[in-house]
Amino acid sequence: MAASRKQKVVVLGSTGSIGVNTLDVIARHPDRFEVIALTAYRNVELLAEQTKRIAPKQVVVADREARERLASLLKGSSPEIGTGVEDLMRAATLKEVDIVVSAIVGAAGLVPTLAAVQEGKRVALANKETLVMAGRLVMEKAKEHGAEIIPVDSEHSAIYQCLAGEDPGKVRRLVLTASGGPFREMTRNEMERVRPENALQHPRWEMGQKITIDSATLMNKGLEVIEARWLFDLPVEQIDIVVHPESIVHSMVEFRDGSVLAQMGLPDMRVPIAYALGYPERLESGVEFLNVIEQGPLTFEQPDRERFPAIALAEDALRQGGLMPAVLNAANEVAVSSFLQGRIGFLQIPRLIRAVMEKSRNRNYETIEEVLRTDLETRKTAREEIGRL
Amino acid sequence: MAASRKQKVVVLGSTGSIGVNTLDVIARHPDRFEVIALTAYRNVELLAEQTKRIAPKQVVVADREARERLASLLKGSSPEIGTGVEDLMRAATLKEVDIVVSAIVGAAGLVPTLAAVQEGKRVALANKETLVMAGRLVMEKAKEHGAEIIPVDSEHSAIYQCLAGEDPGKVRRLVLTASGGPFREMTRNEMERVRPENALQHPRWEMGQKITIDSATLMNKGLEVIEARWLFDLPVEQIDIVVHPESIVHSMVEFRDGSVLAQMGLPDMRVPIAYALGYPERLESGVEFLNVIEQGPLTFEQPDRERFPAIALAEDALRQGGLMPAVLNAANEVAVSSFLQGRIGFLQIPRLIRAVMEKSRNRNYETIEEVLRTDLETRKTAREEIGRL
Repeated sequence: MAASRKQKVVVLGSTGSIGVNTLDVIARHPDRFEVIALTAYRNVELLAEQTKRIAPKQVVVADREARERLASLLKGSSPEIGTGVEDLMRAATLKEVDIVVSAIVGAAGLVPTLAAVQEGKRVALANKETLVMAGRLVMEKAKEHGAEIIPVDSEHSAIYQCLAGEDPGKVRRLVLTASGGPFREMTRNEMERVRPENALQHPRWEMGQKITIDSATLMNKGLEVIEARWLFDLPVEQIDIVVHPESIVHSMVEFRDGSVLAQMGLPDMRVPIAYALGYPERLESGVEFLNVIEQGPLTFEQPDRERFPAIALAEDALRQGGLMPAVLNAANEVAVSSFLQGRIGFLQIPRLIRAVMEKSRNRNYETIEEVLRTDLETRKTAREEIGRL
Repeated sequence: MAASRKQKVVVLGSTGSIGVNTLDVIARHPDRFEVIALTAYRNVELLAEQTKRIAPKQVVVADREARERLASLLKGSSPEIGTGVEDLMRAATLKEVDIVVSAIVGAAGLVPTLAAVQEGKRVALANKETLVMAGRLVMEKAKEHGAEIIPVDSEHSAIYQCLAGEDPGKVRRLVLTASGGPFREMTRNEMERVRPENALQHPRWEMGQKITIDSATLMNKGLEVIEARWLFDLPVEQIDIVVHPESIVHSMVEFRDGSVLAQMGLPDMRVPIAYALGYPERLESGVEFLNVIEQGPLTFEQPDRERFPAIALAEDALRQGGLMPAVLNAANEVAVSSFLQGRIGFLQIPRLIRAVMEKSRNRNYETIEEVLRTDLETRKTAREEIGRL
């Protein structure tokens, strides 16, 4: 790359696992990137440390209490500290910014991410909810405003990498790989008795609690099917899931000529992060290289749709379209947090989601406000449903 | 693609396995390709059948005897029938032709292929010797005359596909996969006693006798390393071989960011053929789709360089550069045909090649004539060496 000006980056959700890895990648390329703003929720200790190291112009936290704790940790030598959604959106849409890393977990990531899209930024997208809840609208806005959305989870980044230089019209099938989660080999009876602590030991990737439970129910794959539908503009019928316990093949693209491209590597989020930051250039990511010989055999199996009904629920929500994926997502968030609190059993997660979906009247949407309203209403419905169980 | 004029194709070596598969692919795209000329050596029966079906303007065979047999099979309704190298070169360089499929087996393919390159054609390259014997010169001429060389063997096509849309400067390593050949699990003692008929049963691909023996000695991988060096302009140190007995991953590219792209599929030459004909478009190839689940585990192992010294011989020839790869190739051809005739043992193939390489004074070359002279001289040396064994 010609030595042009540095690219200015905002990291939304800098204290989560994606955020931390993003800062690690950026630190390897000081001549190329400059971090302008960091945002976090309430992990002000880590945010203070990051702020001292990186010296962003702006930081944003959840609320005034978090701001005060952060200010006292930074002792006067503090940048501007914003709070709440308004300031989050301001950080996501700063004029000078080139790249917005969207790494806030959950529905809270949707609004600032959409704001960045509407400013025509490059969005390195790790927040699943953006596309799960409002994929159609977000992709329309991206097109309208010339925003690039480059995925930062390993599966969609793999597909994005396989599609570089290819004609999307020649794709026959996307194949999302799934580790299968910790309960891949459990019987239904054993799954009935699973406790949160059984699920929170995920074999391959280090992740937050919500995502860990999603990967135990395979809802994470269901959500990824919805994301892939919007990112790659393909119908659900052309998006498959294959269980691949070794987590080395991060996903595949099958073309109409019979050729399959697969992207592989050790499981390390810095590869997709570096790819999204540098695209179309591949940047040094600090990741260890795969030794395919030491790795041992790569195996693939069909996901068990009986034991893991979350997949079919997500596919069903996608087929119904409109607001139904937002319903699915909200019901799942409530179900997972209820499971983590010990209020419902593991197999009740998909049951609850199905019940909520059946209760919800679906319709199309035009605005993000409708999506957010549906999200809130669905959470209420889901909580009532749980009361009834 | 816009409905432009049909692309005109010449198939050099139309009666071999690549030639037959090429005509199969072309027959699937009658609106896109038109076959102008076919050439064969002495399989006039098949050539006659192809000529009747396809009605090329020109056919070329080895000699007058073959021409007379062909003419009598075609009974008057025959196109122009040429013979020998001169007519082969004329077919390879016809003004109107867009694509030359170079599928002649052995050193005989070099001269007509180079001629096509010098006319700036797209060359769909299946003939290994072109790059093994004279890779530096051929690639220089391709650049000078704007010829595209698109590989038609599965390994190099895989790498070509993985590199589409990528910056070659970001490649850390090419990984050529090898089935391991029929003797992958034999001890050295067992290999000492191998007979031609043991080698001629190759597990995965249907191939000619020469290539089958090369894949039993792993010399085919050695030759592919040399080809890859020129096709992708990377030093031998960045080209690795991994044994992959299932022959599903056709090769891989490892990038500097830790990401690995792999091209996979059922073993069927029509995929690389269709890719080379249609590039950058992927054409329907008639190939069955891979079911990665039914396929079973994909395994990878280190090639045993002790039992298969051909790999090190090829790498050594490449490091020496100049005419040494041509020496390696000629010595190998003589060794293989002597083995097939029962004159030398299986493990004497690499021993003979090494002896011939040690006898040959290496130097750089400027012209194809020097390469061809070295080829002839080396064959003579190799035959003398065998007499001495």
